[in-house]
Amino acid sequence: MADQYAQSGEDIRPSEDIQPKTVDLSAIRWEEPAEGPVLVLLDQTRLPAEEVELVCTDPQGLVQAIRSLAVRGAPLLGIAGAYGVALAAARGFDVRDAADALAGARPTAVNLGSGVRRAQEAYRAALASAPGDGPAARERAAAAALAAARALHQEDAEASAKMAGYGLRLLDELLPGGNHRILTHCNTGALVSGGEGTAFAVALAAHRMGQLRRLWVDETRPLLQGARLTAYEAARHGMAYTLLTDNAAGSLFAAGEVDAVLIGADRIAADGSVANKVGSYPLAVLARYHHVPFIVVAPVTTVDLETADGASIEVEQRAGHEVTEVTAPQAPLAGMEAGGGIPVAPLGTQAYNPAFDVTPADLVTAIVTEWGVVSPVTAESLGELCSRSRQVTSS
Amino acid sequence: MADQYAQSGEDIRPSEDIQPKTVDLSAIRWEEPAEGPVLVLLDQTRLPAEEVELVCTDPQGLVQAIRSLAVRGAPLLGIAGAYGVALAAARGFDVRDAADALAGARPTAVNLGSGVRRAQEAYRAALASAPGDGPAARERAAAAALAAARALHQEDAEASAKMAGYGLRLLDELLPGGNHRILTHCNTGALVSGGEGTAFAVALAAHRMGQLRRLWVDETRPLLQGARLTAYEAARHGMAYTLLTDNAAGSLFAAGEVDAVLIGADRIAADGSVANKVGSYPLAVLARYHHVPFIVVAPVTTVDLETADGASIEVEQRAGHEVTEVTAPQAPLAGMEAGGGIPVAPLGTQAYNPAFDVTPADLVTAIVTEWGVVSPVTAESLGELCSRSRQVTSS
Repeated sequence: MADQYAQSGEDIRPSEDIQPKTVDLSAIRWEEPAEGPVLVLLDQTRLPAEEVELVCTDPQGLVQAIRSLAVRGAPLLGIAGAYGVALAAARGFDVRDAADALAGARPTAVNLGSGVRRAQEAYRAALASAPGDGPAARERAAAAALAAARALHQEDAEASAKMAGYGLRLLDELLPGGNHRILTHCNTGALVSGGEGTAFAVALAAHRMGQLRRLWVDETRPLLQGARLTAYEAARHGMAYTLLTDNAAGSLFAAGEVDAVLIGADRIAADGSVANKVGSYPLAVLARYHHVPFIVVAPVTTVDLETADGASIEVEQRAGHEVTEVTAPQAPLAGMEAGGGIPVAPLGTQAYNPAFDVTPADLVTAIVTEWGVVSPVTAESLGELCSRSRQVTSS
Repeated sequence: MADQYAQSGEDIRPSEDIQPKTVDLSAIRWEEPAEGPVLVLLDQTRLPAEEVELVCTDPQGLVQAIRSLAVRGAPLLGIAGAYGVALAAARGFDVRDAADALAGARPTAVNLGSGVRRAQEAYRAALASAPGDGPAARERAAAAALAAARALHQEDAEASAKMAGYGLRLLDELLPGGNHRILTHCNTGALVSGGEGTAFAVALAAHRMGQLRRLWVDETRPLLQGARLTAYEAARHGMAYTLLTDNAAGSLFAAGEVDAVLIGADRIAADGSVANKVGSYPLAVLARYHHVPFIVVAPVTTVDLETADGASIEVEQRAGHEVTEVTAPQAPLAGMEAGGGIPVAPLGTQAYNPAFDVTPADLVTAIVTEWGVVSPVTAESLGELCSRSRQVTSS
């Protein structure tokens, strides 16, 4: 039951020993080989240079994969967290310890904690419904946790499709005539989701309808998820896309080359404030200044009514070496520094490296969810949507 | 008379064979060893990893150094252009051809062309005043071109000091109480100037007066001049500085952590529009949105009254590989791509890579020059300053 995943990159075992690589872009997969169940992840830190899968055999390996961003993106983190609980249960680890470690692996994404809780609650409920501490009871509870993870995975895929539909309709309303030029930030496609993603799924739907003139892809420093992942997904789908440095977006706005901004979200507070990848807020300010719609696409699970407002959102501060070094999306080269990268700043340089920023509701034109569109974004409209989604879900 | 400079990096000969490296930060130096005059440049593409000097023995080597950004920054480009003409004259190259090639090496920086013209005019005037085409006449003309370059170099150093003084006084007026937290973009220090630079010189003056609480340094993608060069200069001066990705500036503004933005300029149009490193315009929009002063520091030579407005400024579009690859500030590693970097985007990715953007005058709080401060920035106030500077200069 050794951890086949390691952060160094040296001990990562590709999944070919489990099954041949499939051609589809599966960011996460539950497998049950003879050796026992495993969670297979596409290592997103290696894209687009290499398509390498990580095999997690224990929750700690998954925690490391989450921290290193091998698996990332709000909806996918929820799915990964749920599968992680199922993995702990199936492999005989302490489920509560595993759930705590998984939920705490990254602080900002609300989906991670809610995915973990969902599987953990299914596990607990199964144990409670059939008292006893024997292997059979634990096996049934593990099966319940896995069923919860699978249900979340499936629901997320369905939510993607619904968000794409609502988002496309919203674009049609806001920008009649089609031929959209959409600017996006970070990565919000199939790599973050059980389906085709959030903001990217809307752009992809527009592409399929012949309505996408150009997808402007922010490279998204420091970890370049736009350059590495969104460009990768856009290229695979044959979309018309152009990459730019984050700071070149201003020139596009000024030139009237952006019809709408579409981004995802990692947490949406009760007042409609949106935490998303750092660099989203400057885009919101630019969009407001240039009268361009700024649209957030996220499943309802991203809304956290327990977080009152933007100021209450905990923003993850990441290590400075992500800024002071540049890293290559491939196996670390010999001679690289601690962070696995090439130093670009003088030794000892201190860096400010928040992973996210917070956009207040008044800068957000609309929030697109699988339950419909919230616009204008207010505490009332958001609360109404959430209560509607919960009534239906629990009925 | 072979060109000792080559773009590949392999044929670059450090200047140790000419004289021992000095400890001061000299971005450009005219030397006259026995082999003939040379222009010695600190190779800014190698900083901060290595302090390597390039030795230009002909104008074409300097053109390459300008294009590759080994030498860069608006005021320094003017000085380099003037020395380049002097070098061509002293080494017996066709001066007009050299001047055309130098002036055309980069299109946006107005200083480059004006520096070239100044030395060329001195050369022509000397030839005209002492007719004849003999070696003695050409030698006198070459000496005149060199004297013009040296005068420009000296004037630029003096202009730096004056800009620092005016800028510091402006900060005191706008932000009484000192303890400034200044955000800057790209590199505007001694590496761009005959003196201590433009915007950076103001921050440095504040530092020396104990008035600088924090210098926020935008890394400035794609070529990371902030991370590589501004951090290097700030570290050398013992300033309190923090590096950030360009897209993290929004979070600093939102948190009220920026008291003023100080940037340089590559060209200022007659209407006060400011062309500067890409990413400046988004900062101007953020500064406006957060009611933070946005201050441009540049010598009067940066003002181009022949360019009517922002739309008339030609913005240099640079190669896409600067975005699709990340480059290390050191000798290219084996296995790197054409651009000398590591690919971070899928093969075939198209990039939008403007070197500059244009900030309209109404977003600029003030323009600080060696002739005083223009605020508010209008065509009238700018024209008045320029005519005042010209009257005094020509008197």
